[in-house]
Amino acid sequence: MTAIASVVLAAGQGTRMRSSLPKVLHEVGGLPMLGHVLNAAAALGAARQVVVVGAMSPRVGAAAGDLAEGVEIAVQDPPRGTADAVSAALPKLEGFEGIVLVLYADTPLVTAETLGRMARAIDDGAALAVLGFEPDEPGAYGRLVTDGSGALDRIVEAKDASADELAVRLCNAGVMAVRSDVLRALLPRIGNRNAKSEFYLTDLVGLARGAGERAAVVKASAEEVSGVNDRAELAAAEGVFQRRARLALALAGVTLRDPATLYLSHDTQVGQDVVIGQNVVVGPGVRIESGARVEAFCHLEGCVIEAGASVGPFARLRPGTKVGKGAKVGNFVEAKKAVLGEGAKVGHLTYLGDAEVGADVNIGAGTITCNYDGYEKHVTRIGARAFIGSNSSLVAPVTVGEGAYVGSGSVVTDDVRSDALALARGRQVEKPGWAVSFRERKEK
Amino acid sequence: MTAIASVVLAAGQGTRMRSSLPKVLHEVGGLPMLGHVLNAAAALGAARQVVVVGAMSPRVGAAAGDLAEGVEIAVQDPPRGTADAVSAALPKLEGFEGIVLVLYADTPLVTAETLGRMARAIDDGAALAVLGFEPDEPGAYGRLVTDGSGALDRIVEAKDASADELAVRLCNAGVMAVRSDVLRALLPRIGNRNAKSEFYLTDLVGLARGAGERAAVVKASAEEVSGVNDRAELAAAEGVFQRRARLALALAGVTLRDPATLYLSHDTQVGQDVVIGQNVVVGPGVRIESGARVEAFCHLEGCVIEAGASVGPFARLRPGTKVGKGAKVGNFVEAKKAVLGEGAKVGHLTYLGDAEVGADVNIGAGTITCNYDGYEKHVTRIGARAFIGSNSSLVAPVTVGEGAYVGSGSVVTDDVRSDALALARGRQVEKPGWAVSFRERKEK
Amino acid sequence: MTAIASVVLAAGQGTRMRSSLPKVLHEVGGLPMLGHVLNAAAALGAARQVVVVGAMSPRVGAAAGDLAEGVEIAVQDPPRGTADAVSAALPKLEGFEGIVLVLYADTPLVTAETLGRMARAIDDGAALAVLGFEPDEPGAYGRLVTDGSGALDRIVEAKDASADELAVRLCNAGVMAVRSDVLRALLPRIGNRNAKSEFYLTDLVGLARGAGERAAVVKASAEEVSGVNDRAELAAAEGVFQRRARLALALAGVTLRDPATLYLSHDTQVGQDVVIGQNVVVGPGVRIESGARVEAFCHLEGCVIEAGASVGPFARLRPGTKVGKGAKVGNFVEAKKAVLGEGAKVGHLTYLGDAEVGADVNIGAGTITCNYDGYEKHVTRIGARAFIGSNSSLVAPVTVGEGAYVGSGSVVTDDVRSDALALARGRQVEKPGWAVSFRERKEK
Repeated sequence: MTAIASVVLAAGQGTRMRSSLPKVLHEVGGLPMLGHVLNAAAALGAARQVVVVGAMSPRVGAAAGDLAEGVEIAVQDPPRGTADAVSAALPKLEGFEGIVLVLYADTPLVTAETLGRMARAIDDGAALAVLGFEPDEPGAYGRLVTDGSGALDRIVEAKDASADELAVRLCNAGVMAVRSDVLRALLPRIGNRNAKSEFYLTDLVGLARGAGERAAVVKASAEEVSGVNDRAELAAAEGVFQRRARLALALAGVTLRDPATLYLSHDTQVGQDVVIGQNVVVGPGVRIESGARVEAFCHLEGCVIEAGASVGPFARLRPGTKVGKGAKVGNFVEAKKAVLGEGAKVGHLTYLGDAEVGADVNIGAGTITCNYDGYEKHVTRIGARAFIGSNSSLVAPVTVGEGAYVGSGSVVTDDVRSDALALARGRQVEKPGWAVSFRERKEK
Repeated sequence: MTAIASVVLAAGQGTRMRSSLPKVLHEVGGLPMLGHVLNAAAALGAARQVVVVGAMSPRVGAAAGDLAEGVEIAVQDPPRGTADAVSAALPKLEGFEGIVLVLYADTPLVTAETLGRMARAIDDGAALAVLGFEPDEPGAYGRLVTDGSGALDRIVEAKDASADELAVRLCNAGVMAVRSDVLRALLPRIGNRNAKSEFYLTDLVGLARGAGERAAVVKASAEEVSGVNDRAELAAAEGVFQRRARLALALAGVTLRDPATLYLSHDTQVGQDVVIGQNVVVGPGVRIESGARVEAFCHLEGCVIEAGASVGPFARLRPGTKVGKGAKVGNFVEAKKAVLGEGAKVGHLTYLGDAEVGADVNIGAGTITCNYDGYEKHVTRIGARAFIGSNSSLVAPVTVGEGAYVGSGSVVTDDVRSDALALARGRQVEKPGWAVSFRERKEK
Repeated sequence: MTAIASVVLAAGQGTRMRSSLPKVLHEVGGLPMLGHVLNAAAALGAARQVVVVGAMSPRVGAAAGDLAEGVEIAVQDPPRGTADAVSAALPKLEGFEGIVLVLYADTPLVTAETLGRMARAIDDGAALAVLGFEPDEPGAYGRLVTDGSGALDRIVEAKDASADELAVRLCNAGVMAVRSDVLRALLPRIGNRNAKSEFYLTDLVGLARGAGERAAVVKASAEEVSGVNDRAELAAAEGVFQRRARLALALAGVTLRDPATLYLSHDTQVGQDVVIGQNVVVGPGVRIESGARVEAFCHLEGCVIEAGASVGPFARLRPGTKVGKGAKVGNFVEAKKAVLGEGAKVGHLTYLGDAEVGADVNIGAGTITCNYDGYEKHVTRIGARAFIGSNSSLVAPVTVGEGAYVGSGSVVTDDVRSDALALARGRQVEKPGWAVSFRERKEK
């Protein structure tokens, strides 16, 4: 296929977001919208990508560098329309010959598959390809008027359209693919004689047609090209992202108790025959291996759940956690930077922070690793087959040896040797009849 | 605008609710349905409101008094139709001149905006205004027959309607606005010569028209006027309430990870750039200030989350709780009547009840305030910058001074002085090799 | 009514499930799909049921025996079509006279009501009845061609259909009811001269018609007859099951804060005026009695919640748990094989495993029953009106007598006598000014 580059327009203010965060950095599936667009182009093999930012949004440029390697930043200042934005990007594409995709950072649902069809239209002889869609209410969208052969004849703004043209349902989504030589030749010829005195990229169609070139239309669903302008639309885009991601998992052999209540991240990996319960929230960096179970009400981030392990309900796994093969993390358990060996069990009401837990360890209910002293985090090490009695406190740094026992309710401050029993709790004393007099006193 | 009064009909039995609670006291958005209707009229400036209750439902009258100030109660006994109910209310409106809104307590979604349009219709010269809607299946609804000018000619019951009249899609929602003088003059003339021997308010239209007055129709969506007769319809009304409330937040600059899983109360306040995760349940009396974060799986009631604070996932804040600026409440934490100072942190598996926590305090995982002795609740006070070691018990009443340290696993029964270290736990002892013989014994 | 038997076809491979579990054992509402089909037939009074399994799926046969009593297993080997499968089942129905229902184990939503209509069609004189439905897109489904009287004339495969026949919207769902004598007489006459060389049960219609018998059509919704072939369809079937079950509860007088987020099991029992919050997951074997409340975020399995009791939010009740009348289980509490007496309270962050808790007991926050020693589970017994101080550990086997007090933070290893106070914790010591030097050291 022809070489691909992208120009991603990301200079819009996004005032309707009512946010101090630039619009295109709001997230969908845990990834800024800008990242989705860069990823789609990259998936198609775009080797060079330019993000066009406004003068007022240095955060967007900085973020773009983190979102994809080798992204270049162009500044459009002042903003004078879409063609002007692409002009600002062109110097960054010096020497590039091929297809330039013009994308919008606030349209995060466009797929690589759709962009691929646009690129193929150019490979098939068109000078440019415009992405079209059929909205329920065409209203103010520009109409894509095609000729008898299905090729694009012109784009007509709604306000300039005749009755016949208004009846056209196919509308302009904005996304465009253009041969780089055509873009370089015609972009300078776009004028700004219009109500807003802006330079519109849509004019490229007429100029190309005038130069005897062919323009193509590629269709996408209205959903795919929907832009995000406020947080209700952001939520809608999130909904579409999630629906796609859930369906892909279900078809790959993952049981989802209620797909609508599983929240995936852009990078979630799930193996076959995994079962995921209702109401599971998955943040970035999670891998769940074959045959593992994630019960209802779990919250996972940056963790690995190995084959056959079981997590939840009501478990929270934070970054740096690994649940070993066949291991078990139960309810009201939080694990952070905790590595559990094969077959280890931590069943109830436990905080495991900065912990290395060996194979087949059993950690009783209510166990707390005391990993923080107000200044530093310390590590708790528990050897294989050790048994930590319920409601124990493990004051890190501390090591419990292999096969050792810690008595229930102990506060362990010193290392425990392998196979030893450690007890660190008060001795029981009893005051007979105390409760009778206590109640008399209270009830007086 | 003309003065407004309301008559809210709340005497229905609601047998299809299959409940011992009177129908109109079932809640939507945490507020009884009756309260929504009173609020809508009050928002329009209704200075006088009369709730008509049945003889069998004293609870409704008592509740009405709590739901809005100055509400008067009229008893309809026995129930003999909607006009009879309004007649029962009229003595309570003695001396009132203006517009009387007749509302239904089981139709909780009617908005002040719609009622305002009805009032304006009367200001524009109509004697009364009837609320109409176009259901998907008009079926047995009364049809609103209009004349050429759009004014209401008559209401025809479905069973008395001609084929032409049955073809009318606009139906009677029941809600009515009437000029008080017209209401007083014509209500006594409504008869009960019908199958059920009841007095129907709809007859007012014919009487007014006969007296040469004009009747207006105001349209609302079928959703807005839908009544609640069973708990499936109650759930549907709750769904509409929530959808409206969520959309308002999103458009005001609040990020909702999944709007469909946020449950708001009728009085929830949320500031700009707040982020709210999936599956958050908000009860009455909650305020979340700008820039705060509420992670997934939180349950909030009667609490304030100040600017920049962070709560959850899996946190429960109960009434009387305040999370100070930039403070942090983490997972599996319950707070009740707990006031956390600026920057305080309570991260994991903790119960804070009746607690005053100073600024920048760090409360370790598994800490429990022992606030109840079986008879009374006692207060725990923790001074600024104190550090409470993990898995500690603070036996209230108790005070930990500023900057003090409590060792992990301590049971603190006495006050701790500022900057002191308190330890209250057993000393660790070890029995070497004990686990080996224990296992041998058990595995025999 | 005529006697009923069923033949349930369960031999399909289900490769699109991408699962090591046979397709028909995947669950809907916590019950394998096969179980739903067996239950529907049993609800209609089917005294004899035969499940036809493939040679490769012994697990299906074994499971069938557990799902319904007296089920017989027939093996179809090799699989040669639906008529061949029924032939394999016939020997197991020796001596049966009546109506044979032919059902599909991967069509779990068919109701007893629909099967009853099919049986009545035969009682009314038809030799067989075929279940039809009208899909949105008839596509490749076989068309049910009826005569002027509404009786079934023939089933035409889509690929053999004329234009007129393709216009028929009524399609074959596969499910059939046949008089046993007709089935025995005609089944051997079905041939396999078709593209796949399989024996198709649909041929029965033509053969019966040829023998002068009448065939009936019974209609069901497309939803009811939808089959499950991949996990997206499994999730859709689960959704339909849940919608039905939720609606039934709401109409019976149960308040569901958000019906869409309540997950019921096939055997859940709920009394009147129960209130169930958002996001509640109910596993098998749960009964909730009248007037009880289940707050948001609860996970229930194999438990009884008695009248007026209250559970959650964030509670997990595991099998063997009973919450007595008016008792209360609060947030972040797990109970397993725990029986709570009337009015008992366990409010916060507690693990109750293998526990017998008397009436009016109060269990403080953070209490842990230490029920496991690495080998066996032991029982904790707490007498009526006892008070367990917060953050205590009860090391089982142990008994706390009636009316006894356990001091907060105690580790109770010995029995506590009635009305006594038990304390088992360290004595508090204080090191004045320690924190000052600690901070100096750390901040250096």
